[in-house]
Amino acid sequence: MRIHLITPIVTEGIRTLDDVAPLQSADLTITQSLIATGPVSIECEFDEAMSVPGIVAEAIAAEGSGADALIIDCMGDPGLKAAREVVSIPVLGPSEVSMHLAAMLGHRFSVVTVLDSVVPMIENLAKVYGTSAKLASVRVINIPVLELEASPEKLTQALASASLAAVEEDGAHAIVLGCTGFLGCATAIETALKAKGYDLPVIDPIPATVCVAAGIVRAGLTHSKRTYAHPRSKDLKGYPAINI
Amino acid sequence: MRIHLITPIVTEGIRTLDDVAPLQSADLTITQSLIATGPVSIECEFDEAMSVPGIVAEAIAAEGSGADALIIDCMGDPGLKAAREVVSIPVLGPSEVSMHLAAMLGHRFSVVTVLDSVVPMIENLAKVYGTSAKLASVRVINIPVLELEASPEKLTQALASASLAAVEEDGAHAIVLGCTGFLGCATAIETALKAKGYDLPVIDPIPATVCVAAGIVRAGLTHSKRTYAHPRSKDLKGYPAINI
Amino acid sequence: MRIHLITPIVTEGIRTLDDVAPLQSADLTITQSLIATGPVSIECEFDEAMSVPGIVAEAIAAEGSGADALIIDCMGDPGLKAAREVVSIPVLGPSEVSMHLAAMLGHRFSVVTVLDSVVPMIENLAKVYGTSAKLASVRVINIPVLELEASPEKLTQALASASLAAVEEDGAHAIVLGCTGFLGCATAIETALKAKGYDLPVIDPIPATVCVAAGIVRAGLTHSKRTYAHPRSKDLKGYPAINI
Amino acid sequence: MRIHLITPIVTEGIRTLDDVAPLQSADLTITQSLIATGPVSIECEFDEAMSVPGIVAEAIAAEGSGADALIIDCMGDPGLKAAREVVSIPVLGPSEVSMHLAAMLGHRFSVVTVLDSVVPMIENLAKVYGTSAKLASVRVINIPVLELEASPEKLTQALASASLAAVEEDGAHAIVLGCTGFLGCATAIETALKAKGYDLPVIDPIPATVCVAAGIVRAGLTHSKRTYAHPRSKDLKGYPAINI
Amino acid sequence: MRIHLITPIVTEGIRTLDDVAPLQSADLTITQSLIATGPVSIECEFDEAMSVPGIVAEAIAAEGSGADALIIDCMGDPGLKAAREVVSIPVLGPSEVSMHLAAMLGHRFSVVTVLDSVVPMIENLAKVYGTSAKLASVRVINIPVLELEASPEKLTQALASASLAAVEEDGAHAIVLGCTGFLGCATAIETALKAKGYDLPVIDPIPATVCVAAGIVRAGLTHSKRTYAHPRSKDLKGYPAINI
Amino acid sequence: MRIHLITPIVTEGIRTLDDVAPLQSADLTITQSLIATGPVSIECEFDEAMSVPGIVAEAIAAEGSGADALIIDCMGDPGLKAAREVVSIPVLGPSEVSMHLAAMLGHRFSVVTVLDSVVPMIENLAKVYGTSAKLASVRVINIPVLELEASPEKLTQALASASLAAVEEDGAHAIVLGCTGFLGCATAIETALKAKGYDLPVIDPIPATVCVAAGIVRAGLTHSKRTYAHPRSKDLKGYPAINI
Repeated sequence: MRIHLITPIVTEGIRTLDDVAPLQSADLTITQSLIATGPVSIECEFDEAMSVPGIVAEAIAAEGSGADALIIDCMGDPGLKAAREVVSIPVLGPSEVSMHLAAMLGHRFSVVTVLDSVVPMIENLAKVYGTSAKLASVRVINIPVLELEASPEKLTQALASASLAAVEEDGAHAIVLGCTGFLGCATAIETALKAKGYDLPVIDPIPATVCVAAGIVRAGLTHSKRTYAHPRSKDLKGYPAINI
Repeated sequence: MRIHLITPIVTEGIRTLDDVAPLQSADLTITQSLIATGPVSIECEFDEAMSVPGIVAEAIAAEGSGADALIIDCMGDPGLKAAREVVSIPVLGPSEVSMHLAAMLGHRFSVVTVLDSVVPMIENLAKVYGTSAKLASVRVINIPVLELEASPEKLTQALASASLAAVEEDGAHAIVLGCTGFLGCATAIETALKAKGYDLPVIDPIPATVCVAAGIVRAGLTHSKRTYAHPRSKDLKGYPAINI
Repeated sequence: MRIHLITPIVTEGIRTLDDVAPLQSADLTITQSLIATGPVSIECEFDEAMSVPGIVAEAIAAEGSGADALIIDCMGDPGLKAAREVVSIPVLGPSEVSMHLAAMLGHRFSVVTVLDSVVPMIENLAKVYGTSAKLASVRVINIPVLELEASPEKLTQALASASLAAVEEDGAHAIVLGCTGFLGCATAIETALKAKGYDLPVIDPIPATVCVAAGIVRAGLTHSKRTYAHPRSKDLKGYPAINI
Repeated sequence: MRIHLITPIVTEGIRTLDDVAPLQSADLTITQSLIATGPVSIECEFDEAMSVPGIVAEAIAAEGSGADALIIDCMGDPGLKAAREVVSIPVLGPSEVSMHLAAMLGHRFSVVTVLDSVVPMIENLAKVYGTSAKLASVRVINIPVLELEASPEKLTQALASASLAAVEEDGAHAIVLGCTGFLGCATAIETALKAKGYDLPVIDPIPATVCVAAGIVRAGLTHSKRTYAHPRSKDLKGYPAINI
Repeated sequence: MRIHLITPIVTEGIRTLDDVAPLQSADLTITQSLIATGPVSIECEFDEAMSVPGIVAEAIAAEGSGADALIIDCMGDPGLKAAREVVSIPVLGPSEVSMHLAAMLGHRFSVVTVLDSVVPMIENLAKVYGTSAKLASVRVINIPVLELEASPEKLTQALASASLAAVEEDGAHAIVLGCTGFLGCATAIETALKAKGYDLPVIDPIPATVCVAAGIVRAGLTHSKRTYAHPRSKDLKGYPAINI
Repeated sequence: MRIHLITPIVTEGIRTLDDVAPLQSADLTITQSLIATGPVSIECEFDEAMSVPGIVAEAIAAEGSGADALIIDCMGDPGLKAAREVVSIPVLGPSEVSMHLAAMLGHRFSVVTVLDSVVPMIENLAKVYGTSAKLASVRVINIPVLELEASPEKLTQALASASLAAVEEDGAHAIVLGCTGFLGCATAIETALKAKGYDLPVIDPIPATVCVAAGIVRAGLTHSKRTYAHPRSKDLKGYPAINI
């Protein structure tokens, strides 16, 4: 089985598969690609919109090259619905998967993310995904995506602090890391919360989504073509890279 | 005052401003443009996604040339949020405006639209816009967008029939026409419903949105920059026409 | 076009049309009347109930004298539904219009109003209007209606302070002024919030409702007679001024 | 204990206490009054609004004469909130009580009422009372209130037929009679449903509300003065009968 | 009429009927039993689950001995649904009854209970009962059930303090005592809140439920057998005390 | 990795692991046990309640013998919350997992189950799990659990027919098989729906839950101990097999 990760930015070097590599096994390979056109990071609706044509192109290519499932590597789940229309293999968004996982594992969950500008995006996703009833809050650490790597320690502290506030003030019983750039931070936050007396899961979206995606492939499931019918055949101007 | 209509398709000739022209007056001018890149019609998530970069480009241009408000001429409201981030003048989506208007004018409303493939899109918009509690149903006439003009009579009959079913079976107290390609059909449907004993408003989205947009401009209002902050300055690859 | 404002109190002198006068134009006249029977101010359910027969009488009279639309000048929207039943021209409540406008302009909004006693009234209106999903909070300034004019400066400060709390503590992205007696205060509050770094719309309900009402008239719309059927003809005791 | 029933119409003779009389006992007396001003029957928002000043006057009088609780004898619960503000003894609406009782006794319930014009009123009450999540449907028999007594047999058949449809098509597990003019019909409907194989409670609102009201008095409870504070003292014009 | 109270624990001596005894009258007798198998106190889902077989056995026995209604003496309402399936007389849960009563008496209510571990249980009950829309919050005093009797003064103070926070911070307009072990504390809390300027009802679940249960019996109502059909006849292993 | 399936009935022979056996692999073993005390099949709340002590005993034993995750083999998810309190390894209910999976794969889903008596149970689970907003309907085939094996062909036809009705009348875009006794039927139903022109996923709960459970274990996740704290240590009467 091969799961392909589409990282929906054009910036090379900031996404590493090292943390998901341990999830590879005899029967699971993980591959990855950036998009050819789009933003350097995703922090608002505009960034998302500009990433979608590139995501669709990568999705078509990945299905064509034999991938068994696709994951869009951003917590805004950009292009999730459009990509599902153009391919038949499962396409998963880490935001949708992580919120549903969190809903299953605890009474209520909070999402801890980067900036104020993405809060409405995540709350709107929850409304569409049907997870609002379990969403306690969305909290931010006020660090832009491209500065996340500057100080891993500062990042972990900010995430732990926001997670603690989510538990104590908002009633969170589980935490979803709200940016795929937080990859690898979950254990440190779980430990920090446990030190305060709170024993709860912190979901690292990309590893969690890889595991669920593998399960969906093994169960022989994919998204509904009743919801995501293949687009009707007609002209498209200005996107020579996209042939559906 | 000038209101600019962005018709988010590349097909020339199917959108006429004749029906909104009567709404022009001494102090209101209406202008319009197509998009330069994108689909020939919008009937699914993929079509929408492909239209957004073109919409954003038109929005920036229209604000630059002095428009006082923008309307996106499609009931999927594609690019509404991205466009609001990049301009300061009010940007309105006919779906959002029509659903809120319908919510104000009657106990519950139905949307009558083209194809099954857009039903989830409209229901999801209702969830995000907060109008789900007033939405009785979304019904379809099963005619693709580019065939709407083939037989105006057949179109009107199909719309009247679906609207009648919405009233009698779903409890609709108002109807929203669910495709901006239905422009000009509202009166005929109102008449057909009245002939069956049902006196209720049928909202023609583009004229209604023009009137509300003019009101918003006169009231000195625009969308919240707390929700739609201008994107942070950073590189964007592959969209030379877009400079924000 | 003539829009008639029904101020649902018996107190002369506290309502001035000066702030909406600028909205008048070559094709828009605004008129106004008090009610003949009812309370001196509206601050609770009892006050509202006592104002409704007077409102209904004014609505019938205004339609009779040729008004094109009616606005009830109170954020409790008293008599809105009863008035819609007895007249055919559009009747608008500033609470319903402002809440839907705010829902369109921002991710979530708060209402800032006079006293604790009206909070349940506004929250219940939101439930009936379908705007609860977008309502962040209702906050009060604890100044009774008839004392609002005593100190304009104190009023503006109280409103700015409550609005700031709504933004910072409740996540409001837009503000609705929750009493029509706050007319004219919106700009000062917007400025005060901007000084704190928050750029968001503050809706002044009467000017905003006048603008939307004009749009509804221009669009040829009115409320659904499926929801608001004319009352069946039958006797009514004790209200000689009301003949429907 | 004395429970006073306020029948909010001016028509003499159509309301009899015979069916609730059996509920009287050594420690429970039931009294009743019509209102002095208002409609001959309640079938729309206008009728309701016109009944409220009369209801408030009766509520004040009944508390003054020593009643222990008040019930408003109409399924629109007109004046419920205003009356609660002006008196301290419990005031109950049969719609609120019956819907909550039905919510407790079955998975979901339907309300069966007179005319289309009251359906939005009842659905809106459900939204305000918090019972929407348990309300399966509101169905009508299309018989005006003043014609209910014309043919008891026709009435019972119409109610049984609408109740059966509510069970089979809407999934009702309990029925609330949606007009206090249906008093005494519950047993016949229960029997008719049982004959079809459906064993479920049919709530007759006035007897049920009398029983719950007696329980509330015995438990020493009344409505919250935090929600229903006594109106601030100020002038009221045109209602000499009302002194609060 | 006889109402039987099933106290779903095996601990003798901590439940007294003294506080409900005053509710007995010429036509109302109250009886009580513990369960034969189960926990010593109920503070989590496991405790609840272990109490249910014992509750079912007591319910069958009580109906067999002629009780007119049953009340399960725990705010988790354990076994409520199972017991309703096996008997025909009304079975009431104090949590369901108290939450619906509170919903009727005030705009919003809070539940004040023992420990964090029961908060999800009560919030989930509210979701199932349809009372979530009226539930402001669930607050805890952090005292285990079996220590409640250790210091009545400390208990009352803790309850008053949590109730005050519910009013001031969560907007509660009514309080529901969230553990039947708090029996008898309501008046002291009402008094403490009144001393702070807040006049609102505090519902003592067992007395309130006894009063409502008596009303339901007098009204001739019981739970819907459409929701709670008698179990199909089949073998059951390991519960010799239960014969349905 | 070993996943243990607890089949919460005492009837031997009707549950086979043959259909999940293909999901076993080099790194995944599946084991199974019945419960020692409880019902012969689960079709109502009473059956569920009687199965829970047995489930808890099996859960403790399975964790003790080294299982990595537990699945409760019934679509009522009996004992899910109690079992999570007493063990630390992930405990999954097929109803919770399948509903969340269906919510991820399509716009809306329906559950097709055995009997009317379980419909409220499944709808209530959806309310607690937060999946109500995505649940189109629950439909039944009216075949008791112990008769499912009598005629596989009749079963498949009944399921296909109910699923088709869910798609055409309720708007389902995905189907969840609502009884774990339907194991192995999913493909036939998918095929039947595809023959009617509907291409959508049919979720077979046990295989799907095994796959997701394996993913959860691989991702290092388990349920929140903030929601499911271990029960406080205290006596328990009548259940010698349970030591926590």
